[in-house]
Amino acid sequence: MVAINADMGEAYSIYRCGDDEGIMPYITIANVACGFHASDPNVMRRTVALAKEHSVKVGAHPSFPDRDGFGRREMAMDPDELTATVIYQVGALTGFLRAEGMPLHHIKPHGALYGLASRDEAVAAAIGAAADVFDVPLMGMANTVHEEVWGQRSQGFIAEYYTDLDYRPDGSLIITREHIAYDPVVAAERSVRAVTEGLATANDGSDIPMRADCICVHSDTPGAVDLAKSVHDALKPHLD
Amino acid sequence: MVAINADMGEAYSIYRCGDDEGIMPYITIANVACGFHASDPNVMRRTVALAKEHSVKVGAHPSFPDRDGFGRREMAMDPDELTATVIYQVGALTGFLRAEGMPLHHIKPHGALYGLASRDEAVAAAIGAAADVFDVPLMGMANTVHEEVWGQRSQGFIAEYYTDLDYRPDGSLIITREHIAYDPVVAAERSVRAVTEGLATANDGSDIPMRADCICVHSDTPGAVDLAKSVHDALKPHLD
Amino acid sequence: MVAINADMGEAYSIYRCGDDEGIMPYITIANVACGFHASDPNVMRRTVALAKEHSVKVGAHPSFPDRDGFGRREMAMDPDELTATVIYQVGALTGFLRAEGMPLHHIKPHGALYGLASRDEAVAAAIGAAADVFDVPLMGMANTVHEEVWGQRSQGFIAEYYTDLDYRPDGSLIITREHIAYDPVVAAERSVRAVTEGLATANDGSDIPMRADCICVHSDTPGAVDLAKSVHDALKPHLD
Amino acid sequence: MVAINADMGEAYSIYRCGDDEGIMPYITIANVACGFHASDPNVMRRTVALAKEHSVKVGAHPSFPDRDGFGRREMAMDPDELTATVIYQVGALTGFLRAEGMPLHHIKPHGALYGLASRDEAVAAAIGAAADVFDVPLMGMANTVHEEVWGQRSQGFIAEYYTDLDYRPDGSLIITREHIAYDPVVAAERSVRAVTEGLATANDGSDIPMRADCICVHSDTPGAVDLAKSVHDALKPHLD
Repeated sequence: MVAINADMGEAYSIYRCGDDEGIMPYITIANVACGFHASDPNVMRRTVALAKEHSVKVGAHPSFPDRDGFGRREMAMDPDELTATVIYQVGALTGFLRAEGMPLHHIKPHGALYGLASRDEAVAAAIGAAADVFDVPLMGMANTVHEEVWGQRSQGFIAEYYTDLDYRPDGSLIITREHIAYDPVVAAERSVRAVTEGLATANDGSDIPMRADCICVHSDTPGAVDLAKSVHDALKPHLD
Repeated sequence: MVAINADMGEAYSIYRCGDDEGIMPYITIANVACGFHASDPNVMRRTVALAKEHSVKVGAHPSFPDRDGFGRREMAMDPDELTATVIYQVGALTGFLRAEGMPLHHIKPHGALYGLASRDEAVAAAIGAAADVFDVPLMGMANTVHEEVWGQRSQGFIAEYYTDLDYRPDGSLIITREHIAYDPVVAAERSVRAVTEGLATANDGSDIPMRADCICVHSDTPGAVDLAKSVHDALKPHLD
Repeated sequence: MVAINADMGEAYSIYRCGDDEGIMPYITIANVACGFHASDPNVMRRTVALAKEHSVKVGAHPSFPDRDGFGRREMAMDPDELTATVIYQVGALTGFLRAEGMPLHHIKPHGALYGLASRDEAVAAAIGAAADVFDVPLMGMANTVHEEVWGQRSQGFIAEYYTDLDYRPDGSLIITREHIAYDPVVAAERSVRAVTEGLATANDGSDIPMRADCICVHSDTPGAVDLAKSVHDALKPHLD
Repeated sequence: MVAINADMGEAYSIYRCGDDEGIMPYITIANVACGFHASDPNVMRRTVALAKEHSVKVGAHPSFPDRDGFGRREMAMDPDELTATVIYQVGALTGFLRAEGMPLHHIKPHGALYGLASRDEAVAAAIGAAADVFDVPLMGMANTVHEEVWGQRSQGFIAEYYTDLDYRPDGSLIITREHIAYDPVVAAERSVRAVTEGLATANDGSDIPMRADCICVHSDTPGAVDLAKSVHDALKPHLD
C-alpha cells in the first residue's frame, strides 16, 4: 500500500503558490505549511478545510523561521530552540485540525530544514523530539541520516519517493530550486515501479533500491495537476 | 473562590519583560503570550514549564500580529482572519502544553485586541469563534461588550479585576501604557473587598459593583513581586 | 504634461505579483514597494534596476508594517512612529537608488495608509513629515484630505487619476480589493479626457472635475499590460 | 589617534537593551542597529538623535534577517541577496541620518554576520559590495579574512579592539554570548597599551600584536558605563 503526498498551503497573504484545488483530488496526504516559510492563519485554515473536503490526511510542514527565503536557507539553530520552533508550528496547525475534527497525521520538515536533517544527526534528533510531543511519524527520504534517526522512533518513518525529481546512483535526491515540468507518463511508471518492485532508475540509468511508502508530487511545477492525476490513476490499486 | 492571574512569558529573543520567576509562586493562572506581540518558541516553552513547576494553570494570551507595537495598536482585521489568527496562536501554545501534559485553561486576548473586544461585538464574536475550537472560557473585564458576548458561550466567562489599576465610576478600567508602582497593602485590601463584597472603589471615591472571578496582577510594574505576594497572602482563604 | 505611474516591485520571496517586466515599458514613474507590505531586498534591487533600464523614475511606496495583510489593514499608530516607519522604508529604497545612481522622485503611501491619509489629517501630516526628510513631493488623490495637507508642502503634490477604477459623483475613488479587467480603449479615452479637459465621468454618468498630474495603471489586473500600452500610446503627445 | 565605539540602539518595541544614554557620552562612534536583529524605526530615530546630541559619529550595524535570534545564528544566504539585505538596512539608517543632517560614517556587521565575514571571503566580499554603494569604510577585527577583503577597498578598514573581551594567542577574539563584567581599570590599561604600543595580552599571558584604530566597548555588560568612562578618560589624549 502506498500514499501520495504533496506540499500544500504554501500561499501567503495575497500571493498564490501552486494549484492546491487542482492537486488535492489526486493526493491522499497533504503536508501543510505552518507560517514560517509560507502560509498564514487564513491560508492554513482554508487548506485544512480543503483537505478535509477531499478526505486527504494532513501532516505538518514546519520550517526554519525564514519567510523571506521560503525556508530554503540553512540556519544555525541550537537543538533546543529548533525543537521549540517545530513544536510551535505543529501546534499552530493542530488548532486548525481541531477546528475540523481531524487528527495530525505526520510531520515533514520543509526545505533547508529537511535537507539539513537528512545529513545532520543533531538536527534530525531535535525534530524527532518535537514529533514525540505529538506522537506522530516523521516523513523523509530513504538512505539518509534522518531515516536512521527517525526510523528508531516508535511511531515509525514514512519514506517518500520523489517521482518528479532525479536521483543519484547512491540513492540521494537531486534537489532543484526551480521545479521543471516532468512527463506524467514517466512519473506514473516510476511510481508504480518503486511501489511494486522497490526500485528506481538513477540519473546514470542504473537501478537503485528505493523504499517508497509515499509518492511525493509537487504542486507548483508546470503541469503539476496532470502529473498528479497520472500518478494517482496508475497507483489507484495500491493506494491506502 | 477566586484565582490570581498574570500575563507571563512576554520576554522575546534576548529581551526580558517582567519577573516571571518572581511572580509565578503567587499566581494561580498564567496568561501566556503566543508570539504575536511578545514571546517566541523558546520563551513559550520555558514559561509553560515554569507554570507547571508552580502548579499554575495556563491560558493563551493571543494578540494582533504586531510585535513591533507589542500588540498595543488596533488593527482593522476581518472577523474571519481574526478568528484564524487567534486559532493559530492558541494552537501554537497547546503544543507546549501537550509537551508538559497540561490542558489549556482559558484564552485572554492581549492589549489592543482585548480593548477592542471590550467594545466591538464583531471582534468579540470572532475571538469567541476561536475559543469554541478549543472549548475553553474567555477571560475579560466585567461591564463590557465582551462580557456580554463571551458570557453567552457555554464555557462561561472569567471576569478579572485589576487590583493595581484604577476604575471609573461607570465601572470601566483606566488603562495606562506605563504601569506605575501600586501600594501592595491597598491592592490586597481592594482584592479582598472585590472578592468578598463584590465592590470596588472608583477613582472618584464612589463604590461600584465589581465582579471578580480572578484578580489580575502585573508582572512588569515596579514592585510587582511584592504586590503579587501581598494579594496572594490576603486572598489565601479564597483561592481555588 | 502628464506622467503614467504604476505600483511596481510587489513580489516577495518566491512569490510574484503583477507583470513588472511587461508594464515597465509603458509607464514613466514607478512606485516601488519597500518591504513592509510586499517586496524584500532582492525584489527592490531588481525593480530599481528594471526601472533604470526603462528610464522610469522611481518613487517610494511605503506601507503600514503589515506584510501578512499586504498593507490593506488600517493600524492605529502614533504620528511619530508613523513618521519613523515611513522614513525607514523610504531610506531603505534610497539605498538601492544610490546603487543605480538614481534620485528619489516622490513618495506614494500604499493601501490602508494611503486611504487613511486621504481622510485623516494627522496621518497625512505624519507622512508629510517623513517626505520632508527626503525633500520630495507626495502623490495621492485629488479631492481628499491628503491633497490639502500635502499640497501645502513646498515640494508640491502629484494628483493621480485611476484610469481603471470608478469614481463617485463627489470625486471619491471606489477602491476594490480585487482589481477587475478594464477595457483598454475606454481607459485610454478616460485618460486623455482627464489630461486635456480636466474631467472624468462618475459612476452615475455625470461629469466631475479631475486633476490628473499622473495616470495610475495597475500591474496586477487581468490584461494590465494591454491597458498600460493603450493608455501610454494615447497619452504619448502629453507625456513628460 | 583612536576612536571609541559601541553597538547602540539595540532596544526593540517595549524592550530595552543596554544603557545607551549612559554610554553615549563616552564613545566617539556608534554602530546603530538597523531593524534586522534589533531596533525598529522609533528606536533608530531616537538613537541617531541621541548620537547627534553627543557629537557621536554614526555607522550602520546590519545583520542577518533574524530578529528572533538577535542575529546570532548563521544563515546560508547567496552573496547577492546578502548584499541586497545589507543595502536595505544601511539605506534605512541613512533616512534617519538625513533627518538629522549627519553623514554615514561606516558599516560594521552584527553578530553571526560579523563572525562569518571574519572567516568567509564570499560573505566578506558581499558585505563589501554593499559598503561600496555608500562609499564608507567597514569596521571589523584585525587578523581576519574580513580585514584582508575589506582592507583592499579604497575607503579603508577600521580595526576595532575589544577591550572587555579576551583574545587567543593567535590574535582571534573569544566571543561570548553573555557578556560578563570586566574591570574598568584593566580595560583602560589594555586600551592605552593597544593604542600606544600596538600590543595586547592573550589569554595565555603572551603578548600579541594588536591593531586598534578603534576601541570597542559593550553597552549591555554589567558595569558598562563605568568601563566606558574609564576607557574614555584614559584615552582622552589619543581621541580623534
